[in-house]
Amino acid sequence: MTKRGRFITLEGGEGVGKSTNMAFVVATLEAQGIEVVSTREPGGTPRAEAIRALLLDPAPEEALNTDAELLLMFAARAQHLAEKIIPALSRGAWVVCDRFTDATFAYQGGGRGVAFERIAQLEAFVQRGLAPDLTLLLDMPLSAAQSRLESRLSSRQEQRDRFEQEQGDFFQAVRRAYLERAGAEPNRFALINAHQPLEDVQADIEQELAKRVAAWR
Amino acid sequence: MTKRGRFITLEGGEGVGKSTNMAFVVATLEAQGIEVVSTREPGGTPRAEAIRALLLDPAPEEALNTDAELLLMFAARAQHLAEKIIPALSRGAWVVCDRFTDATFAYQGGGRGVAFERIAQLEAFVQRGLAPDLTLLLDMPLSAAQSRLESRLSSRQEQRDRFEQEQGDFFQAVRRAYLERAGAEPNRFALINAHQPLEDVQADIEQELAKRVAAWR
Repeated sequence: MTKRGRFITLEGGEGVGKSTNMAFVVATLEAQGIEVVSTREPGGTPRAEAIRALLLDPAPEEALNTDAELLLMFAARAQHLAEKIIPALSRGAWVVCDRFTDATFAYQGGGRGVAFERIAQLEAFVQRGLAPDLTLLLDMPLSAAQSRLESRLSSRQEQRDRFEQEQGDFFQAVRRAYLERAGAEPNRFALINAHQPLEDVQADIEQELAKRVAAWR
Repeated sequence: MTKRGRFITLEGGEGVGKSTNMAFVVATLEAQGIEVVSTREPGGTPRAEAIRALLLDPAPEEALNTDAELLLMFAARAQHLAEKIIPALSRGAWVVCDRFTDATFAYQGGGRGVAFERIAQLEAFVQRGLAPDLTLLLDMPLSAAQSRLESRLSSRQEQRDRFEQEQGDFFQAVRRAYLERAGAEPNRFALINAHQPLEDVQADIEQELAKRVAAWR
């Protein structure tokens, strides 16, 4: 019987360096001969990416209701789990995902103020107990993340999406919710100080992976 | 203080004549001086209609997971309630809606086999007790509805959507679930025999409205 793969998520607010470090996590695991499926949320499959587009659409003519936003997040997640994550884990591949349900608690819970209890209801509904084996939370002070985000947005030359348009208080609440979750589940979370030179960030990530990978294979 | 408006839904499978009778219900109420907001599900607002498009998209490359379908339905519903239905009822308008949560029980529950209990969880989550005051269920034998649907589809010259592509067993289960719900809530439901000449269908609808409207104004 194939051994089930491991599920690793990367979390953190805008501008903390998730993309660069996603690639690093994938490369580190692949260098050890592990089959890795690299994916992201919301999205990860064609239909889930179509839901992502609705979630990010800054269309000004109609506000997106917070319950609708939350249900769209979980609709995309149900699709992603059924079509990509669960099949990959089942065949023994490891899945590395850029954001997962902790982001929903941070953004929709912390940021938008939806009660965590409501989010937990949908989590149980959709995931039926499935959770990441390891969550790398990239954390840095908001001021540092914001200036990195600014420079990325100005080079991208695109309109900000619905989340990027939010203000400082929102991102402060997102960060606080992430840190609370990390504090509540210290075994699943590895808190990474992302406010240091990239090589140091990656040395920390490598160490967190090394602690677990041998035991998991 | 403005008296809250009434919420009337029309339900029934494909081909039972909902569109024609929607217009009749609206006209009947308006003729009595009632302000009516006519709408539909899934959809009814720009963002909810965008969710509808994802739900109906027959894109063959990826199946839509049943949980994802269910969550998209309720995401569209949350948006529709917040942006259109609740504001209309609050200002005293009556809302007439082409399909609502009974359709979710019939299609996702009866048709797709999602446990009614799971649908009821999301209903409570999104609607927080809000339910239609009257549901007109247009019912006819499947064979009659199917031949009406066929002639509509052939005149429309469009591809069938994800639901229209389903087969007889699916629609049989949809009809059964609708009838069960009507049986379980006889006060809210009015069961309309839609397999008779249109003028008789509409006489029946008119009578069901007349029974309630005077008391409700």
